[in-house]
Amino acid sequence: MKSNILAWLEEGNITVPSLLFSEYRKLNLNETELVLLLNILTFLERGNYFPTPEELSARMTISTADCHEMLRRLMQRGFLEIIEQYSNEGIRFEKYSIKPLWERLVEQFLVNHQSGLQEATRKTEEM
Amino acid sequence: MKSNILAWLEEGNITVPSLLFSEYRKLNLNETELVLLLNILTFLERGNYFPTPEELSARMTISTADCHEMLRRLMQRGFLEIIEQYSNEGIRFEKYSIKPLWERLVEQFLVNHQSGLQEATRKTEEM
Amino acid sequence: MKSNILAWLEEGNITVPSLLFSEYRKLNLNETELVLLLNILTFLERGNYFPTPEELSARMTISTADCHEMLRRLMQRGFLEIIEQYSNEGIRFEKYSIKPLWERLVEQFLVNHQSGLQEATRKTEEM
Amino acid sequence: MKSNILAWLEEGNITVPSLLFSEYRKLNLNETELVLLLNILTFLERGNYFPTPEELSARMTISTADCHEMLRRLMQRGFLEIIEQYSNEGIRFEKYSIKPLWERLVEQFLVNHQSGLQEATRKTEEM
Repeated sequence: MKSNILAWLEEGNITVPSLLFSEYRKLNLNETELVLLLNILTFLERGNYFPTPEELSARMTISTADCHEMLRRLMQRGFLEIIEQYSNEGIRFEKYSIKPLWERLVEQFLVNHQSGLQEATRKTEEM
Repeated sequence: MKSNILAWLEEGNITVPSLLFSEYRKLNLNETELVLLLNILTFLERGNYFPTPEELSARMTISTADCHEMLRRLMQRGFLEIIEQYSNEGIRFEKYSIKPLWERLVEQFLVNHQSGLQEATRKTEEM
Repeated sequence: MKSNILAWLEEGNITVPSLLFSEYRKLNLNETELVLLLNILTFLERGNYFPTPEELSARMTISTADCHEMLRRLMQRGFLEIIEQYSNEGIRFEKYSIKPLWERLVEQFLVNHQSGLQEATRKTEEM
Repeated sequence: MKSNILAWLEEGNITVPSLLFSEYRKLNLNETELVLLLNILTFLERGNYFPTPEELSARMTISTADCHEMLRRLMQRGFLEIIEQYSNEGIRFEKYSIKPLWERLVEQFLVNHQSGLQEATRKTEEM
């Protein structure tokens, strides 16, 4: 019993801003693209920095070819990028980064937040 | 500046087991169904216990009618349920629960884990 | 086996900014005060909005009297407040809020971040 | 504004089972020991696998010497261990692991859960 719960625990959790779920549509992402990005995030958190289209599509309902194309388009549209890093031993490796997704989400948040503030101000002025 | 970060903080995070992303396909869920369930979870965590198909589809790429049908099918297939609760003042209200999803995920985890243990045993015996 | 993992899952997680652990000392909090605030947060997330000093001290290494005094001081020093809310049925209730803690943490973050930016600028100018 | 929120986001979150806060006292940990273990976890998640007593005590209210002694005692009492790992390039390094803490927490959870089940059974039989 104990070993099962420990094994469950070791699988870990993934934590993302709730805003991602309320705003992805406004960012012109569909559900499959969103889940692909979240899958990349789970791989990154497990230390697999460059999951292949095979690894990603194996857990999704899309083919490897579609996954490959979707990755290409997500990079082109500015949601995903490949960055270079160096290990402690000085060896270069490639790594996906979803920082562009967070940037887009923050921009969208600021647009919402700003228009919310303006509306609040307008309502106050109208009174 | 401070108010923006605080507003961001107040939107909150959502934390789910990483296994959900590696196993949803084996549970016969597609990406749209997965995101619908995660959207219900974000509503639940914000204290909106019974989001309507309108509220859910407004942030998704599906129509209200499709959302309604998808909710019905997710309940029928055992991923989602409606439970009754009573407020502190004794007033009855309905609430979505995604406990059935977690049950299915734990079952799938135990199947994986068990077959992993058996494989490890077989390998040991073969040596 | 399954029921144990489900019961574990139902206990839930608590997610806090990593910065809280690197900065609490700079905010003049000690470890006992930090854990008291985190315990209040876990009660809030479980829907217990106004845990008593008895409930809080029962899981800590401090006496109920010390807990009472610590709560009083945390409010006085601006880390904790009691707010009023109304239930859906219009009944007023009191609730702890740790929003003041997050405000202090964001202020500290901005101080660090700003001085980091200034240092980066100075270094660039010195070159 | 955007850069501040992004910088905040990059600091990341830490997610732990809520049970840790309700049970640490039963595990004979005090608040300072709990926060020391959580600080080690935040370092691990940032990729610093072997934080020094200097790094740890710098953010806590204890001296480096006390921190050193507390680390030694936590290992002796079975809450913390040092494990060996190999980097992708085959270089050996040491790493703290708080897996022993999770094992203790799961044991405590099973004790609670089991006695809860027994009590429920007894109550049923008494009826």
